[in-house]
Amino acid sequence: MTGKKKSAQASVEAMYRVFTIPEAPESTLSRIDQDISRNLAGFLQGHIVAVERDLSDVEKNFSESAVPEKPVFVSEQAQFLLDKLVANSVHTASPSFIGHMTSALPYFMLPLSKIMIALNQNLVKTETSKAFTPLERQVLGMIHRLVYQQDSAFYRRWMHDPRHALGVMCSGGTIANLTALWVARNRAFPAEGSFRGLHQEGLFRALRYYGHEGAAILVSRRGHYSLRKAADVLGLGRDALIAVDTDDENRINTDALRDKCLALQKQKIKIMAICGIAGTTETGNVDPLDTMADIAREFGAHFHVDGAWGGPTLFSRTYKGLLKGIEQADSVTFDAHKQLYVPMGAGLVVFRDPTLASAVEHHAQYIIRKGSRDLGSNTLEGSRPGMAMLIHSGLKILAREGYEILIDQGIDKARSFATMIEAAPDFELITRPELNILTYRYCPERVQQALAVANAREAERLNTGLNRLTKFLQKAQRERGKAFVSRTRLEPVRYDRFPCIVFRVVLANPLTTHDILQDILAEQRFLATEDAIADEMAILNRTAESILGAQQRLDRRA
Amino acid sequence: MTGKKKSAQASVEAMYRVFTIPEAPESTLSRIDQDISRNLAGFLQGHIVAVERDLSDVEKNFSESAVPEKPVFVSEQAQFLLDKLVANSVHTASPSFIGHMTSALPYFMLPLSKIMIALNQNLVKTETSKAFTPLERQVLGMIHRLVYQQDSAFYRRWMHDPRHALGVMCSGGTIANLTALWVARNRAFPAEGSFRGLHQEGLFRALRYYGHEGAAILVSRRGHYSLRKAADVLGLGRDALIAVDTDDENRINTDALRDKCLALQKQKIKIMAICGIAGTTETGNVDPLDTMADIAREFGAHFHVDGAWGGPTLFSRTYKGLLKGIEQADSVTFDAHKQLYVPMGAGLVVFRDPTLASAVEHHAQYIIRKGSRDLGSNTLEGSRPGMAMLIHSGLKILAREGYEILIDQGIDKARSFATMIEAAPDFELITRPELNILTYRYCPERVQQALAVANAREAERLNTGLNRLTKFLQKAQRERGKAFVSRTRLEPVRYDRFPCIVFRVVLANPLTTHDILQDILAEQRFLATEDAIADEMAILNRTAESILGAQQRLDRRA
Repeated sequence: MTGKKKSAQASVEAMYRVFTIPEAPESTLSRIDQDISRNLAGFLQGHIVAVERDLSDVEKNFSESAVPEKPVFVSEQAQFLLDKLVANSVHTASPSFIGHMTSALPYFMLPLSKIMIALNQNLVKTETSKAFTPLERQVLGMIHRLVYQQDSAFYRRWMHDPRHALGVMCSGGTIANLTALWVARNRAFPAEGSFRGLHQEGLFRALRYYGHEGAAILVSRRGHYSLRKAADVLGLGRDALIAVDTDDENRINTDALRDKCLALQKQKIKIMAICGIAGTTETGNVDPLDTMADIAREFGAHFHVDGAWGGPTLFSRTYKGLLKGIEQADSVTFDAHKQLYVPMGAGLVVFRDPTLASAVEHHAQYIIRKGSRDLGSNTLEGSRPGMAMLIHSGLKILAREGYEILIDQGIDKARSFATMIEAAPDFELITRPELNILTYRYCPERVQQALAVANAREAERLNTGLNRLTKFLQKAQRERGKAFVSRTRLEPVRYDRFPCIVFRVVLANPLTTHDILQDILAEQRFLATEDAIADEMAILNRTAESILGAQQRLDRRA
Repeated sequence: MTGKKKSAQASVEAMYRVFTIPEAPESTLSRIDQDISRNLAGFLQGHIVAVERDLSDVEKNFSESAVPEKPVFVSEQAQFLLDKLVANSVHTASPSFIGHMTSALPYFMLPLSKIMIALNQNLVKTETSKAFTPLERQVLGMIHRLVYQQDSAFYRRWMHDPRHALGVMCSGGTIANLTALWVARNRAFPAEGSFRGLHQEGLFRALRYYGHEGAAILVSRRGHYSLRKAADVLGLGRDALIAVDTDDENRINTDALRDKCLALQKQKIKIMAICGIAGTTETGNVDPLDTMADIAREFGAHFHVDGAWGGPTLFSRTYKGLLKGIEQADSVTFDAHKQLYVPMGAGLVVFRDPTLASAVEHHAQYIIRKGSRDLGSNTLEGSRPGMAMLIHSGLKILAREGYEILIDQGIDKARSFATMIEAAPDFELITRPELNILTYRYCPERVQQALAVANAREAERLNTGLNRLTKFLQKAQRERGKAFVSRTRLEPVRYDRFPCIVFRVVLANPLTTHDILQDILAEQRFLATEDAIADEMAILNRTAESILGAQQRLDRRA
């Protein structure tokens, strides 16, 4: 063989090796694998660098744009990932990472995920998934039953019926919401007479045939942004997503909802769907679902509930009452990678009526032929992994009791954190937790006093200063890497709906303790004394003092 | 403590344990974990039962519809999964599973996946993904460069630009195609004058404003069914997906394409997008992309290329010429879980023009705020896992050279399999492989001879019999569990476009050998002698003999 031929032969052999020979037990990658199995918390703690590096700095490690010509050793890539990727990841499992909805995973999810990935099944069709298909149907059935409480006979009839599906599994809540609204849209403009249905002829002809000027989706101002995205994708346009005012507790104002529906109807806009929220993303509130169900019925609209966050509250005997009315929804979204505690990439939607999903049925010649059990006929996605196996395992290993404990302790912890914030003179609770989410901000005592007496213009000045302060504190805390709360913008009624930036806290990690929460407040209090924010603080304090001084003079005069 | 309280306390402790204490090394689950690490092939071979069980039988193991009240032990669930799920899974990694696009994975993907799952990052925003965001941007950049071959300066300018994205990562090709067409639709009806754009006002007003009667997506008859689904989701209706005739080689007939465009234009239908296919799902053919690019330009249409299957052919110096013209596409879909050999659940679309993705930009207050680096602003999905890490590792560890070997050996193997089929007197090659996909059927020699002389009605009778035979053989082979080819329906020109059911073979597993392919043919030949199909065979043979007899009499007379 020539040298060139020899090297080509060697490349071929190297390539085959990665498909046939497992990593040696002493290789870098195997050691990482074992480390994770033995001590996940230690692995994460040991390898993720707490103090935040600037992202533009991190980008330098990912700047090469050409696919490398020559292979690198697996160990080299493993070391690279450890040093450059893992080190600069976010410690989402940390008990003091309470800013977003991604939390710790039960240990068993890791080896189970490995089985799932090793099997590499594709749920689009039974030919590449076999037992995974009935397993997924069972998971959909269990969540359906959790929501709709039908009897066993119902599930014997429908759960494994090849022509129907009790729901649709997908990669997350956004696709779940989109799927529900896709069903709603197609069913709002069905085939009739010479019209072959929106799914066939499109929205333009559908509206013309039915004599409508448009179609609307109504949701409270606190609706998840995925709904606006869905309105865009579905061809309705973002304007079609009608944001309805909320009450003081961030729940939809049902009078305003009905008024909006009436007004839209007058404009010949079809009320396509009404969306209730079971756990708003920013404040964790639950809409009055039963009243909304009545309104949806009144206007012949599809009633969807976005339970991406709060759906699993149904596991709790104590708190499931908060979701009263959810069983009247036509469709309900759940996110499994949130409060079902499975790894990222699993959501689902269930339909009360098992025939609903047929509104979006698609077939192909080489798979998902009509009459097959293939789950691909009703899903927005095509090829899909076997994440249902992880949900199945969660439902079996944690069971209703386990999820109930997780839900209850989260809500109880949020309540006691709220009490802690209210007891602190220099913090202000913005939204009280209904589920396990609350918002608050750092607000010196004198500023709070000034806010209490300030007129609208004065309050605006104070809140503007506080917004800058909150933003600074949230970033500074994140950068220090000990703890993380997120931030968002709310329009509190008490400040005449002036947009206020607030800290947002999600308490879903069972390992978050009372002490950790106290440390988070202490760190924020400490950061407020930093030089970088000193000028801002001085202005804020001066403004507060001048407001309070003026008020005092007024009081004296009275 | 009372008994009840004690048991409640025990439940709480058990629940905490799953979040804090790793599986013991000798537990069932740890043993499975280690088995997979040490010997994946052995694990799959040892646990997946080859002979197929009827699905309705398998369903019995997944028939309980209530979420269990009490937790089961992890080991119990692990054993259940092993016996009931793994055992009845599909051995997608088997070298004789050549019927679908899911194949073997390189070993290193397994421990790497564990790292990904352990980190549980969420790519929607940098606050939950940090270094994963630049890594994903790099992967998008690398695939972009593979397709569009811009220089390094281009990627320095755009790859990490927070306001833009060179592409979008998602769960698979279906969402990738949908994303591309969503971009195309929104850009086809932009804001202008008093009109604020389709994304804002919706399709109905867009068509009215621009004076169109509809909008169309054109693709060949061999287009993937996800495109029709996209036409439905996007509100265009399935009718808007115009299927253009193909030539004898299953490539789009570009004259027919232009004619269709002209006809649609006359009907005031906007030519929204033209889709070329780089590797049709059923036959692996590549459309004449450069001519299609010209036509798209002529009609001002978005030119999308679905390279879900064939895109990685660009890694091969020998075969990349087959995709000539792909660099003129406005957008290109790749499926990473296909020929990039990463686990299920990873697709992407790249855009030639880095500003294109802004047509679908969405923001929210608590994340993906304007100006952030958050990747969530252009994705259809919201929360997403860090699959980019696995693609990154494939591109580094296999490198261009490794992928080239995989592509080359697949195409070469398909060609030699085609030769093998043609050499066998009782098999008929239906479509010759252009990439690594071919179709064929079992067809006794005398039947082939009869087909060669049959008139249209006679050919129909023969093909109808052959269809039943092919369907039987494909199912029977699958049920025996040694090998798997899929089946589909094609309309071969040689049979006047009569719908013929054929075996479909995808040769992407590098471990599939010449001997395995020969065994597959031998098994099909053997199955054709089974009693269950004997009557069908007898009729088929009699029909063939009568056609041949009549022909002989005719020949004698002449």
